[in-house]
Amino acid sequence: MIQGFNPRTGQPTGEPVAEASDADVDAIVAAAVAASGAWAASRRRAEALEAVADALDARVTDLVAIADAETALGVERLTGEVARTTGQLRLFAGVLRDGGYLDAVVSPAAGAAPDLRRVTRPVGPVAVFAASNFPFAFSVAGGDTASALAAGCPVVVKAHENHPGTSDLTAAIVAGALASAGAPAGTFGLIHGVDAGLRLLRHPSIAAAGFTGSTSGGLALARICADREVPIPFFGELGAVNPVVVLPGAASLRAAEIASGYAASLTLGAGQFCTNPGLLFVPADATLLTAIEEAVGGSAGGPMLSARIFAAYQDAVAEAGAHPGVTRLASGTKGEGPWGATPHAFQTSLKEFGADAAVLSRERFGPAGVVITYSSVEELLPVLGKLAGNLVGTVHVDTGSAADIELARQVIPALERIAGRIVYNGWPTGVAVVAAQEHGGPWPATTAPAYTSVGTAAIRRWLVPVAYQNFPAELLPEALRAERP
Amino acid sequence: MIQGFNPRTGQPTGEPVAEASDADVDAIVAAAVAASGAWAASRRRAEALEAVADALDARVTDLVAIADAETALGVERLTGEVARTTGQLRLFAGVLRDGGYLDAVVSPAAGAAPDLRRVTRPVGPVAVFAASNFPFAFSVAGGDTASALAAGCPVVVKAHENHPGTSDLTAAIVAGALASAGAPAGTFGLIHGVDAGLRLLRHPSIAAAGFTGSTSGGLALARICADREVPIPFFGELGAVNPVVVLPGAASLRAAEIASGYAASLTLGAGQFCTNPGLLFVPADATLLTAIEEAVGGSAGGPMLSARIFAAYQDAVAEAGAHPGVTRLASGTKGEGPWGATPHAFQTSLKEFGADAAVLSRERFGPAGVVITYSSVEELLPVLGKLAGNLVGTVHVDTGSAADIELARQVIPALERIAGRIVYNGWPTGVAVVAAQEHGGPWPATTAPAYTSVGTAAIRRWLVPVAYQNFPAELLPEALRAERP
Repeated sequence: MIQGFNPRTGQPTGEPVAEASDADVDAIVAAAVAASGAWAASRRRAEALEAVADALDARVTDLVAIADAETALGVERLTGEVARTTGQLRLFAGVLRDGGYLDAVVSPAAGAAPDLRRVTRPVGPVAVFAASNFPFAFSVAGGDTASALAAGCPVVVKAHENHPGTSDLTAAIVAGALASAGAPAGTFGLIHGVDAGLRLLRHPSIAAAGFTGSTSGGLALARICADREVPIPFFGELGAVNPVVVLPGAASLRAAEIASGYAASLTLGAGQFCTNPGLLFVPADATLLTAIEEAVGGSAGGPMLSARIFAAYQDAVAEAGAHPGVTRLASGTKGEGPWGATPHAFQTSLKEFGADAAVLSRERFGPAGVVITYSSVEELLPVLGKLAGNLVGTVHVDTGSAADIELARQVIPALERIAGRIVYNGWPTGVAVVAAQEHGGPWPATTAPAYTSVGTAAIRRWLVPVAYQNFPAELLPEALRAERP
Repeated sequence: MIQGFNPRTGQPTGEPVAEASDADVDAIVAAAVAASGAWAASRRRAEALEAVADALDARVTDLVAIADAETALGVERLTGEVARTTGQLRLFAGVLRDGGYLDAVVSPAAGAAPDLRRVTRPVGPVAVFAASNFPFAFSVAGGDTASALAAGCPVVVKAHENHPGTSDLTAAIVAGALASAGAPAGTFGLIHGVDAGLRLLRHPSIAAAGFTGSTSGGLALARICADREVPIPFFGELGAVNPVVVLPGAASLRAAEIASGYAASLTLGAGQFCTNPGLLFVPADATLLTAIEEAVGGSAGGPMLSARIFAAYQDAVAEAGAHPGVTRLASGTKGEGPWGATPHAFQTSLKEFGADAAVLSRERFGPAGVVITYSSVEELLPVLGKLAGNLVGTVHVDTGSAADIELARQVIPALERIAGRIVYNGWPTGVAVVAAQEHGGPWPATTAPAYTSVGTAAIRRWLVPVAYQNFPAELLPEALRAERP
């Protein structure tokens, strides 16, 4: 049985839910397989996604209440997250109506070359592993589910064990709305339990998988996908420390603003974001360091999502604090409850950091950051170049300083090689759901750096191309008939 | 040392070439890393690709002579293959000038959402494992190399051991033309040797790999990529049997044409094509079976590329011939030399095939096919549905028969799920190099079913996206400045 807990008290909340048995998993996958032809062919997928969005919006109060009890993320954040989730569903309805995602291409016959027309098709039933830290937007009805359903793939979600009640309520709403909208039975399914999730991932009928979570967990699942008798694509979004580089002009000009922005980004959601700014590279500027000390010292933590996440955070903080090359710059106020996180900023030099980068650049999921002082960008560049992959890199620039702009021209190419998104004079947390978003990056930020899990391009993960050679119009997919020149 | 052999005699041809040492591999990769920034930023990549094409065309006589000595594929075929290879290089020059491959997307600021702009960048140095059966088009200067160089990635090719002299001559021409065109040193490199290839694939600076070859070899390399400390994308094109379905009307109407087309496709290049029609599903129609018997019986084999390929083919033929559910329908004339292949068509029923599909649908690289008689399409569909992935599926239809068209509507969806390209009233061999081509397919046809290794979309394998958030125009990549709305 899976039991939810209230992070504010550490006590159980809601009834325990049953883990899916092997037979349950097999039956749900069999239903997904049975649904896949009709769902792929459905001309009403956009309406079905909108029906799901409407149904979730109609139950926002209930959803937020149960999620707040299970995650302690707060009513405001969770209400916004439901809106983001239903916004994503409607965004993908628009993607379907636009049709560009089909990537229809026509190469007319020419000389010896035949008439060739290519279009994408849904890859087949998709397994989605829900995240702990976004109980709506990266969970049961989140971006992976929305994009896969849009692509025409049935979805089986493995719920995150930290919010079983939220998962069940969401799933009931999704399934009901899909059924009302005429989607075939089996288009959507939910399972609970780690073993059930592994059986799902190994199931021969699962064609691809999406995952948001830890590097260790993602790596284990990625290897399962690679070692299957028929390997499948695994789209994992794993760990990141999202380096932020503050250039000298920006440090002088905007010390207080940068310090407060950093503390806010570091502690948002008790630091439980994959886009958290774990590494801050700053000039050895006393004003800025003092401002950071004050901002982080004045910040407040929050209840973490689970005892396990809290324990891992405590270990990560202890590791950084005990490191001989590191000092503690500031600590904030402990969060509520038994799993309340305390924000911390640690300080080290570029030299110390470079000497033990593997440890000091480790992700510490929670509101703890390492502030690294550098004396010149020339020395900084090779250190940036050796960082592992990240979702986001950030640069702070005095836009009026020619010197900063020139340094930015050196830092940005280094960040491009290690991150999927580069933020200019901002912070990495906050991921807009738009067409140009890239929420991805080199390993270990993701297992598939050519893809994004946020924004309209997320649908590409669930599509594969098929080319039709010398086909008569009547047998071509509709998108290719319309493209006939 | 690697020694080339003349398949027509089994005797050595040309001087042996040295295998790359560990230090050689490391030096070539280091040079590729050193070149990668300048090559990615170069505005002259299109001209460089055209210079390579021109240089290869200028040496076509020498190239064909050495390749014919090492492969026995014949002057006509090899001359055409050089043209295809240089055509591919020029095609990618056009792709670069068009700019669409950059996939530039702009999401202007709106409400709380920032300005976001996304564009692709080259993934980094690429390893290319050359194929045995296309000494030009899928080898040193083939499609993988052309598309990766176009993307802005330096390339290190591991030569195929069956044509070392062709590889060295091609590499010298490519390297010379690139240098003359101003490409940075290290943009292109060549190594010989299996161990050198493994070291290349494991090298931390290699960012992605392309491969064309056997399922077992590709699987081993795919696992190396997955097990690296930093896993990398592996684009492998492995085995396929490319099912062909002849519908009843087509069998009645065009028995002789289908039989001769089948024999020609089966024996083209001594059957050494990944698009070879290994499985032919036909109605139990005596006229068609007799026509196939005559066509394959009248066909001629050819010298295979190597002793190893010939031995594997002999084993595969023996396995099929000894199978209790299989009879020998026809055999053609043995090819020239000690590794001369004999064409074979084996016959079985749908029932026998279904009872041992894993063995009977095995790829038999060479001019051997299995002809499976079916009594109804209704019985055929579940058997097709259980086939593994392929590069091509084919359907033969009497276009004037409403019954055949109706059956095609059932067969095509089954083929779509197991193949990347569907051919209508044609044969799977022959792969046009055009924008709409999909030379890919589900496992084991490829390791990455969303991609193609032929056609302009092949460049996508070597590109990853980066998004820029709230960037000033002066710091944006040029493609995103031009897109400013």
